[in-house]
Amino acid sequence: MSQDYEVTKQNKIRQIREKGAYDRDTVHGILDAGLVAHVAFVQDGEPVVVPMLYGRDGETLFLHGARKSRVIRLLEKTRRACINVTLLDGLVFARSAFHSSMNYRSVTVFGPARLVDDLDAKKHALHVINECTMPGRRAELRMSHDNELKMTGVIAVDIEAASAKVSDKMPDDDPDDLDAPVWGGVLPIETRFTELLPDEHVKESIEPSAALRAMEGKKL
Amino acid sequence: MSQDYEVTKQNKIRQIREKGAYDRDTVHGILDAGLVAHVAFVQDGEPVVVPMLYGRDGETLFLHGARKSRVIRLLEKTRRACINVTLLDGLVFARSAFHSSMNYRSVTVFGPARLVDDLDAKKHALHVINECTMPGRRAELRMSHDNELKMTGVIAVDIEAASAKVSDKMPDDDPDDLDAPVWGGVLPIETRFTELLPDEHVKESIEPSAALRAMEGKKL
Repeated sequence: MSQDYEVTKQNKIRQIREKGAYDRDTVHGILDAGLVAHVAFVQDGEPVVVPMLYGRDGETLFLHGARKSRVIRLLEKTRRACINVTLLDGLVFARSAFHSSMNYRSVTVFGPARLVDDLDAKKHALHVINECTMPGRRAELRMSHDNELKMTGVIAVDIEAASAKVSDKMPDDDPDDLDAPVWGGVLPIETRFTELLPDEHVKESIEPSAALRAMEGKKL
Repeated sequence: MSQDYEVTKQNKIRQIREKGAYDRDTVHGILDAGLVAHVAFVQDGEPVVVPMLYGRDGETLFLHGARKSRVIRLLEKTRRACINVTLLDGLVFARSAFHSSMNYRSVTVFGPARLVDDLDAKKHALHVINECTMPGRRAELRMSHDNELKMTGVIAVDIEAASAKVSDKMPDDDPDDLDAPVWGGVLPIETRFTELLPDEHVKESIEPSAALRAMEGKKL
């Protein structure tokens, strides 16, 4: 078992504790399987949450957006982020509404947010995001222009506290309900890449690279 | 076109404005297509975000959880929520890292949160969540027990401000990049229900209802 994240007030799993996990293998595995993070920050005392692509580099998550966007400016200013990545795996049809639920893999990360301003550090962070979302693609593309890097804001969030919650169960019904003439079980949900669709500018001689082909049909 | 939500400081789309929408048809359509909402609140001045099932009833979103859970207690106390529902539809492979992006349908809702404590109102809210997540299932199940209702916390969030952002485009490359020998296009992402899996307690004579069968194969 990999080393656990410390359990604090922030990341402690209080409900259905047996589904909680704090070990790095589980937390990192879910972060690496996801594509979109939901990033929360505080604006004028009020909560805001936005979806963002992200990348993980060891104990750091990188986020990017337009330099002048609200999420980048607010994370720079408030320096605190909470990030959740959830993959939905199914609906659980129990024999009561109370025990009906969902199957999922979910990670919540708390940590300090900082603007990545140094040019080399910024390039590295963008490379990490690229590799996590589109593995192998970066090497096929031209270098970034200076003004593109200038227009892009990058935030690093170091994983200070984290917890995972995983549910992959059949219904956990009350024994009294099992004799009811009601079907019980799971309806799985599958999220996957389908097939590459070229745009109108792709010349006939140009095929998708092996890296892109490798993503087709892949499940998240 | 349905009536627009008022554009305020909170919900104003600032980046890539042409992808933004404030009309109720678009906002409600995405809320009704999603299954999991990411709900942000503030705890001791810090942002927290958690994934939750939800249901929409007109201009109100209902959320539920264990009555004593952090998210229910904090929403009751702080009275402010921000909710995002995002459906990921694809990765956009442009000919530069800068223009690479994702296709998605996303809605962000801001509004006052209140605990739903009145028993009839609570039953109604839970019915709405059930119907939105598992259409037709509630009618197959027994009534909720009093202690189940007592253990369940329900939060209502009235949609005060909302915006949608939808991207379903091919790459928007710089004209200078179009001659590069690089493939460009979209890799769609599909999220769908697969096939019902019975648990070990289902008797041979019991088949899934038509309502459940209707969900199989359905795309989100």
